[in-house]
Amino acid sequence: MQINVPQMAESVVRSERRGVAKAITLLESTRPDHRVLADELLTALLPHTGKSFRLGLSGVPGVGKSTFIESLGIYLIRQGLKVAVLAIDPSSSLSGGSILGDKTRMERLSMEQDAYIRPSPSSCNLGGVAEKTREAMLVCEAAGYDVVIIETVGVGQSETAVANMTDMFVVLQLPNAGDDLQAIKKGVMEMADLVVINKADIDPVAATRAQAQITSSLRLFAMHGNPEHGAHDAASQKAQWQPKVLQISALQGSGVDNFWNTVQEYRQINADNGHIAQRRQDQSLAWMWERIDAGLKQAFRQNAGVRDSLPQFTEQVRDGKIAASTAARQLLQAFQGQTGL
Amino acid sequence: MQINVPQMAESVVRSERRGVAKAITLLESTRPDHRVLADELLTALLPHTGKSFRLGLSGVPGVGKSTFIESLGIYLIRQGLKVAVLAIDPSSSLSGGSILGDKTRMERLSMEQDAYIRPSPSSCNLGGVAEKTREAMLVCEAAGYDVVIIETVGVGQSETAVANMTDMFVVLQLPNAGDDLQAIKKGVMEMADLVVINKADIDPVAATRAQAQITSSLRLFAMHGNPEHGAHDAASQKAQWQPKVLQISALQGSGVDNFWNTVQEYRQINADNGHIAQRRQDQSLAWMWERIDAGLKQAFRQNAGVRDSLPQFTEQVRDGKIAASTAARQLLQAFQGQTGL
Repeated sequence: MQINVPQMAESVVRSERRGVAKAITLLESTRPDHRVLADELLTALLPHTGKSFRLGLSGVPGVGKSTFIESLGIYLIRQGLKVAVLAIDPSSSLSGGSILGDKTRMERLSMEQDAYIRPSPSSCNLGGVAEKTREAMLVCEAAGYDVVIIETVGVGQSETAVANMTDMFVVLQLPNAGDDLQAIKKGVMEMADLVVINKADIDPVAATRAQAQITSSLRLFAMHGNPEHGAHDAASQKAQWQPKVLQISALQGSGVDNFWNTVQEYRQINADNGHIAQRRQDQSLAWMWERIDAGLKQAFRQNAGVRDSLPQFTEQVRDGKIAASTAARQLLQAFQGQTGL
Repeated sequence: MQINVPQMAESVVRSERRGVAKAITLLESTRPDHRVLADELLTALLPHTGKSFRLGLSGVPGVGKSTFIESLGIYLIRQGLKVAVLAIDPSSSLSGGSILGDKTRMERLSMEQDAYIRPSPSSCNLGGVAEKTREAMLVCEAAGYDVVIIETVGVGQSETAVANMTDMFVVLQLPNAGDDLQAIKKGVMEMADLVVINKADIDPVAATRAQAQITSSLRLFAMHGNPEHGAHDAASQKAQWQPKVLQISALQGSGVDNFWNTVQEYRQINADNGHIAQRRQDQSLAWMWERIDAGLKQAFRQNAGVRDSLPQFTEQVRDGKIAASTAARQLLQAFQGQTGL
């Protein structure tokens, strides 16, 4: 394709669907010359980004994520908002897009003019998938989408990636906490700013018990909500968000308004106390370093000296024949072509 | 000093205190020629390591860590075991060793022939401190210490480092969970294989309430205890450890036997089901990669091209003028001296 970056940027900012789709396709391209153009495009779009609300959503298959997102999306559109739905599913390159983002899945929402749904980019590693989704999010923001929903599947490391690129991270959960909590990966629930017990009508007693239990656990363990900038917060005297647990039933459409009101409350509190701005800055810098780390590690693995000796060192470390720190030092010396002293 | 590595290794294996102390001092040296000898020493000692139990212990100042470790250490020595106490306190280089490892703190234990207490190495970064402590742990193992206790302070990232180099991670906690849990850093409690409510006699009602609340939360959120190797575990049909919460009062010496019985139970279960062996292998490989990452990042930061442009890119990313991924790519190009295409 013939690519004119300023034209493409303009088309995105005018919110033309074809322009948005083409821009994201360019960002997903692996061709080095495309990558250069993609970076130019991103830099051109960046002044137009930052105005949407970035909502991360996780939950294992079967929890009713698609139905929930569809109800929410239509609810938001009825309120006059534009909604984009993106996905991170590192398994999609293997399974051909097992679960996320395909349009047939959200039939009603995908027919809406003010909705934009894009399936997960496929790539062999999470870092690559997350990078492309993060950039697609910026494109959607520049195109004036008011809410960007980024969904993921609740079983792998992709949750951390989603929590680290959104303003709010929501976990969907089934009512019977005891067993089904095992299904969501350990360490995910603690990142939630909000837990939603979906299909609460199936077993109201269990849902209420789960709500109490998760609320109490989040109070003890939650990672967000009790920010580390404690002194700053105490000084500013602003209200702080505490992670919450809601019950809803997406199938009957009940609770979506309640959900959105809670999101609005979260957004208000964290805009006022500066956490969203701070979180975005922290996320951007962390993301820069995480991509640098990934690039350095790739260069390391592709280095001839390292490639030759890495399998042997790995085996020796695994078998306890050489200390991990010794192996690391010797591999780094091989990488840097140094001689030892 | 004149260093003879085989002689030093022999002295360590014979469990001579002076040899152990000298070996750890060599490992802590920052001189490049010492580093080479230190790696030789580690490699010589490695066949003698692995037989101790590695116990990580965390808790904020005031929770009674020193008293607890002293009671435990003397209890273990009375049982005929040799005990080493190491520490990770990244703040020690700033504060001059604020809290950990000084001998005056554990007066009774430090007088025991079968106890070896070593304060935290001082260094400006956690990675360096953790590396030295990890290596000191191997020296103590080679010297025949049966239990190596690695303590840390419960307020920083050092907890993850300790959890990642030990067989079992224990968090000490005060009875009044509500407020004092705020003092321990978010994300630490979830890593605990065992939580100990110390000074339970101060407020027995609060201690029992905290015990119930933490037990229920660990069941939901704990990272260990529900290992990710789920299929393997199901197949092996072996018993699995579930994180527990104990009450004790270290001051009155009550509960140390109960604590140690619980540790023994943990050790038995996780020896039988293979988790300790697996955890050690995973830890060694993870540690190798974490040191490689640290080395790569250091080389990156010291690169002339990077040094020149990093501050500017950092500022632009923070201010939203350039996308994080674009900045990362351009910095990597500067590092690798490439031209763009």
